Amino acid sequence: MNGAECLLKTLVNGGVDVCFTNPGTSEMHFVAAVDRVEGMRCILGLFEGVVSGAADGYARMTDKPAVTLLHLGPGLANGLANFHNARKANVPIISVVGEHATYHRECDPPLHSDISAFAKTVSGWVECVESPDQIPVATHAAIQASLTPPGQIATLILPADCTWEESNPPSTEPVVSPVYQKASDEVIKAAATALRTGKQTAILLGGRVLRQKGLNLAGKIAAKCNARLFCDTINARLERGAGLTPVFSLPYFAEKTVEILTGLDHLVIVGTKPPVSFFAYPDVPNRLTPSGCETHMLARPEQDCLEALERLVDEIDATNEIPRVLDLKPMGLPTGELNPQSIGQSVATLLPEHCIVIDEGISSTLPLSAITATAMPHDWLGIAGGSIGGGMPLATGAAVACPDRKVLCLEADGSGMYTLQALWTQARESLDVTTVIFANRAYRILAMEHQRIGAGDPGPKAHDIMSLDRPELDWVSLATGLGVPARRVTSAEEFNQCLEAFLKEPGPNLIEAII
Amino acid sequence: MNGAECLLKTLVNGGVDVCFTNPGTSEMHFVAAVDRVEGMRCILGLFEGVVSGAADGYARMTDKPAVTLLHLGPGLANGLANFHNARKANVPIISVVGEHATYHRECDPPLHSDISAFAKTVSGWVECVESPDQIPVATHAAIQASLTPPGQIATLILPADCTWEESNPPSTEPVVSPVYQKASDEVIKAAATALRTGKQTAILLGGRVLRQKGLNLAGKIAAKCNARLFCDTINARLERGAGLTPVFSLPYFAEKTVEILTGLDHLVIVGTKPPVSFFAYPDVPNRLTPSGCETHMLARPEQDCLEALERLVDEIDATNEIPRVLDLKPMGLPTGELNPQSIGQSVATLLPEHCIVIDEGISSTLPLSAITATAMPHDWLGIAGGSIGGGMPLATGAAVACPDRKVLCLEADGSGMYTLQALWTQARESLDVTTVIFANRAYRILAMEHQRIGAGDPGPKAHDIMSLDRPELDWVSLATGLGVPARRVTSAEEFNQCLEAFLKEPGPNLIEAII
Repeated sequence: MNGAECLLKTLVNGGVDVCFTNPGTSEMHFVAAVDRVEGMRCILGLFEGVVSGAADGYARMTDKPAVTLLHLGPGLANGLANFHNARKANVPIISVVGEHATYHRECDPPLHSDISAFAKTVSGWVECVESPDQIPVATHAAIQASLTPPGQIATLILPADCTWEESNPPSTEPVVSPVYQKASDEVIKAAATALRTGKQTAILLGGRVLRQKGLNLAGKIAAKCNARLFCDTINARLERGAGLTPVFSLPYFAEKTVEILTGLDHLVIVGTKPPVSFFAYPDVPNRLTPSGCETHMLARPEQDCLEALERLVDEIDATNEIPRVLDLKPMGLPTGELNPQSIGQSVATLLPEHCIVIDEGISSTLPLSAITATAMPHDWLGIAGGSIGGGMPLATGAAVACPDRKVLCLEADGSGMYTLQALWTQARESLDVTTVIFANRAYRILAMEHQRIGAGDPGPKAHDIMSLDRPELDWVSLATGLGVPARRVTSAEEFNQCLEAFLKEPGPNLIEAII
Repeated sequence: MNGAECLLKTLVNGGVDVCFTNPGTSEMHFVAAVDRVEGMRCILGLFEGVVSGAADGYARMTDKPAVTLLHLGPGLANGLANFHNARKANVPIISVVGEHATYHRECDPPLHSDISAFAKTVSGWVECVESPDQIPVATHAAIQASLTPPGQIATLILPADCTWEESNPPSTEPVVSPVYQKASDEVIKAAATALRTGKQTAILLGGRVLRQKGLNLAGKIAAKCNARLFCDTINARLERGAGLTPVFSLPYFAEKTVEILTGLDHLVIVGTKPPVSFFAYPDVPNRLTPSGCETHMLARPEQDCLEALERLVDEIDATNEIPRVLDLKPMGLPTGELNPQSIGQSVATLLPEHCIVIDEGISSTLPLSAITATAMPHDWLGIAGGSIGGGMPLATGAAVACPDRKVLCLEADGSGMYTLQALWTQARESLDVTTVIFANRAYRILAMEHQRIGAGDPGPKAHDIMSLDRPELDWVSLATGLGVPARRVTSAEEFNQCLEAFLKEPGPNLIEAII
């Protein structure tokens, strides 16, 4: 058994059975091994950002790592932006990066670079194998490292000669479940005391407690103590909609968050950090917790947040509280002008149960969070690291993870252009994804930010840099070119009809909504 | 004058007047400044790899730096693969990367990352401004650093608050021409002695000597001493064709290079390194200089290679030698099957004088180098760092640099998919680029490499990972979607007719050649 086969077998033994890849020559033995070792599904992306973003989406929906296989430093470089998003989403990923043969590196061939340096920018764990004998242990260590709470990218660099030479037998060492440290009794008690004061309190939730179980616990606390429930502006995965306890996403615009949090006396934080603005602006605070508000860090992302909430429920005696949940509230289909508001109303009305919604709509989806709050229960996945180009790859990975659920990808036209190659993988794998392109033909968010950051009204050159209408992008042609059926719509009625049809058909498909 | 205006004015004062960009919120003051400071042309790319690759192409054709403006760590990350190519091409680029406000970094907002760590992977110089007062000196230093022989990427990290606060006046310090160290007399003499032995000698040329002046000098030496002239497999820029002294590109396949160099007694190297294989393969040498052959490093890339050749010409008394040059040899148009060979013949026949050819055809353009050797004189630009996805961005930057020359981009369908967004910038800027897509619907090179690297015949899964025909990419739709007129052709006759028409029309345009 050569090194590549040993690597693959160790991964499969460890429960890792999906590989997103864009390989090159140095990874050919890995690719060959896929036919010799049972149990690995390989999915090709035509650009590395598709690969890294899909692994992120897969991990968010399964809580387990996929492996990515990329080609040397530049191949990894192309995947880094979506690995950045995955890092901020705290998901486990095993990133295998091919390297030149050990003895070839010092020759400095054209594709040589410092792969470790690229990898360290996004990885919690990086190791380079130096002989095939190290592969079983290193691969098992990579799986284990990826699961380090709360989840991280573990990068294994694999020189080509280590893959083609004879290796030790694969590891059959079991993968140990990660140990999430428990919150201290003190912080639980302090939070309970704060919540019992009767003053203005709120709980800010992040990470895996933003799912039914965590929301239910938070809902009990909120009911008992009249606390408000918040979550970050962008979340890796938030379960929401009818039947679930609602949490309010802090607005993207810092001024609004400041307004909302004004008067707060205590802020209990679970699985995230104190709120900060997305960017800094002149004369606007960047730390958003009001002065005078006491912060209680109940559990950090790498701690057992669910267990901390359970203990807090006990501590304040809220076990039998009935959490507030939202009822399904049919919106009715919109008519007339097609705009973010009417699209939101249509989505809220037609959203199928347990749909996975990917939100990379940027300025266009700002109103959607409120409109869809009482739709059918669904998961809402955001671009956790703020790096645009994550949306369509996330949708791809989520659809691989959950073949029985519909994925709806809400995508800005500017952001969509970064990693549109994902559509091809969706077509290739017959993934059930419906993509809605919000075609405003501008980096609309930048026009808003230009003002907000104190640069005044954009002049003609600045305006041009934010405009995508010279030439107009034609998303129907682009999607068709990538093998995904697409339609352009220009009115709310057309959108309703098309979305209804596309959600019923097996995907992938794409709607270009001209707004 | 705020920091952004000061930065821009210092760049313009230093002769830097083209900016390739994909900005975000943290760069809005730079964008605003473009309307207030005269003299900077801003060109938008819809993906950062377009931006970095275009700056590479621009620098290769002008020998001066453009500035790139990217958004934070993830924006830079998306540009790194083509910066890798630029690094290997030894070109000057000033990479300005926006950063969060100095006081906002410690808040670790979603888009926060270690920008320096990203930048160092490809840059020869990295500096982060910490106050607006530093901008004039730091910007001038960046220009100067980019020109450090033989040219490098200088990265200036620019926190947002430094751009919006009041700054010192811009620098008017003149940019000093870089000093290329001269080769020592000893190496000149040693090389001369070697060339005079009458044994088998060759000169391996790289970098800027691969232009008319350097080729002419090398041609004199070759004529005098019966030396062969070689260059690397992939070159940043090679002037070639009728009227020029030919140099033979060492083949991509190491075995062939070994064969060609067998029996060589002396190898004089100018502006590059001893030949190594692109990848290592089991049982194939990776260092390709024959054993027993003496290597003479006449001048390294960071030395004055042209001057070294001049002195060598003097030393061997070859001033009056007549270098061999190639005559224009009309090929005639091909008929029948469309394949890399017939496309090459058509290109060789129709190539306009002084055309800039970008070669990212990978397996499909392997035969083209020989076929086009006696075409009209042209420049041939390769993917210097071997990172695919460089082709269409390079073409974009070269066309911006040379608006009076036609650019012909020979592009593999697999490689083209990495950075196809470049087509949109070509349309937006009305750049005179004709792109030929070699649509073999496969990563054909990988199928070849799979065998060569000892992994045998690809099994069904491996074969699938190298296939781009499920679904078939439709490049006519893709180009149309990006605003570039395109046609699909399937025979040599159709190709001839379409290439002739497209080369005559102002570009951009695209031919999808089904092979």
